[in-house]
Amino acid sequence: MPPEYVHGYSSAEGARLADQASTLTELLHSDTSYPPGSLVLEAGCGVGAQTVALAQRSPGARIVSVEISSESLTAAQERIRAAGLANVAFQEADIYTLPFPAEHFDHVFVCFVLEHLSRVAEALGCLTRVLRPSGTLTVIEGDHGSAYFHPDSEYARRTVECLVELQRRAGGDALIGRRLYPLLAQAGLRDVRVSPRMVYADASRPALVDGFIRKTFTAMVEGVGEQAIRQGLIDAEAWRKGVRDLYRTAEADGTFCYTFFKAVGVK
Amino acid sequence: MPPEYVHGYSSAEGARLADQASTLTELLHSDTSYPPGSLVLEAGCGVGAQTVALAQRSPGARIVSVEISSESLTAAQERIRAAGLANVAFQEADIYTLPFPAEHFDHVFVCFVLEHLSRVAEALGCLTRVLRPSGTLTVIEGDHGSAYFHPDSEYARRTVECLVELQRRAGGDALIGRRLYPLLAQAGLRDVRVSPRMVYADASRPALVDGFIRKTFTAMVEGVGEQAIRQGLIDAEAWRKGVRDLYRTAEADGTFCYTFFKAVGVK
Repeated sequence: MPPEYVHGYSSAEGARLADQASTLTELLHSDTSYPPGSLVLEAGCGVGAQTVALAQRSPGARIVSVEISSESLTAAQERIRAAGLANVAFQEADIYTLPFPAEHFDHVFVCFVLEHLSRVAEALGCLTRVLRPSGTLTVIEGDHGSAYFHPDSEYARRTVECLVELQRRAGGDALIGRRLYPLLAQAGLRDVRVSPRMVYADASRPALVDGFIRKTFTAMVEGVGEQAIRQGLIDAEAWRKGVRDLYRTAEADGTFCYTFFKAVGVK
Repeated sequence: MPPEYVHGYSSAEGARLADQASTLTELLHSDTSYPPGSLVLEAGCGVGAQTVALAQRSPGARIVSVEISSESLTAAQERIRAAGLANVAFQEADIYTLPFPAEHFDHVFVCFVLEHLSRVAEALGCLTRVLRPSGTLTVIEGDHGSAYFHPDSEYARRTVECLVELQRRAGGDALIGRRLYPLLAQAGLRDVRVSPRMVYADASRPALVDGFIRKTFTAMVEGVGEQAIRQGLIDAEAWRKGVRDLYRTAEADGTFCYTFFKAVGVK
């Protein structure tokens, strides 16, 4: 059984992740393309939301996508088949006990995974072990502390803080984006380069307003409402106001900022 | 006499603004160049920290830089002379009572000014009045709520909140960056385009670590310590810890994020 995953494994969650992927694909993936013939590990592919983007941009690479949840893995396989892609092999596996020999892969790719792990340094050690010398490790993560918006709202900020606290209680770190540089450097990787990918949405960018503010970020926050209230982090009324105020930022005079971090290091 | 200005008018503050300007010049100014022969108003030039960058990138334009503080204006003139630039005329003036006819300028440029004003909408009205139809208004501002860092620190966050509160008490808004889109749109400008300019510093970018984390941001925060303590926003010990923790983010495993916002609208 997979460990507790703050966003859950529901199909609504799957739809949210797909929306997120299509809005953010260019921003996050445009500069990742692996050479033909290279063998690439995608660790923690989830329902395959990022796998499609990855596989499309590296048509000649052979990608091995592993995932701890067999249910998610099935969804990912289905998604890759539907996208007409044939360069991805799937395998059920745990990042901490990867069933591959040392230095097996030319490159390793991890997206939205480390934020959920309680032993990040150990996980990076496991990923680095299966990477060949001079191969690259690419990590993409969000940072919920990078979210701010107009109109500002204490209720809205509290709902985001609930998400951060829930992730902390589940063993993860929703503020991991800002930590990627020291994490990769401490894992022994060299030439570590972190580039922030900021999402800025206002009324002049309606696709981002809808795709990111409403369907990605606020939907993600909404998805943990029951947990947050049940765990006593916030009362139902304050939660309702916070979510309302997040949606409020998607109106014509609102703005929203969020930053993803992409790190690449060389073994 | 100029109204209260949260950062003060000391020469140390002048040096800080010069350091800030050299580190951030490319990020903020690289895409602003006015055509030869155009007449450009820089409103609120302060000690000229941005004026040099502006004038260098538009060598054929005639720039009129106005400033309410005669002392700052003298420093700005000296700075422009030292830079060997001859395309800037200086004039003491108040943004709210600009001594120019309507539609006098081809373009208007404002940098790090609106955040200090209590009547921003009125100021934008005054700036738009002196702009010719089809001319552009460019605004650059910071947003102190965009600052986050590793290691995270509640003390450090409190010092930043003090700065925001001091600016609020002085009538300004240190969170104005995120509001530029609605402000310009509500001022009647069209085709408003806001682009965030994020500063991300880690040990792989030592010039930014020194130039931004230490000499720009933390120096700015340190500069208001006495005011913050005197106004009872924080006690001296907590302040000291906060500033220490901000400097801590400049060490080898630290990271720092801050975002400026640049908005351009057309009359």
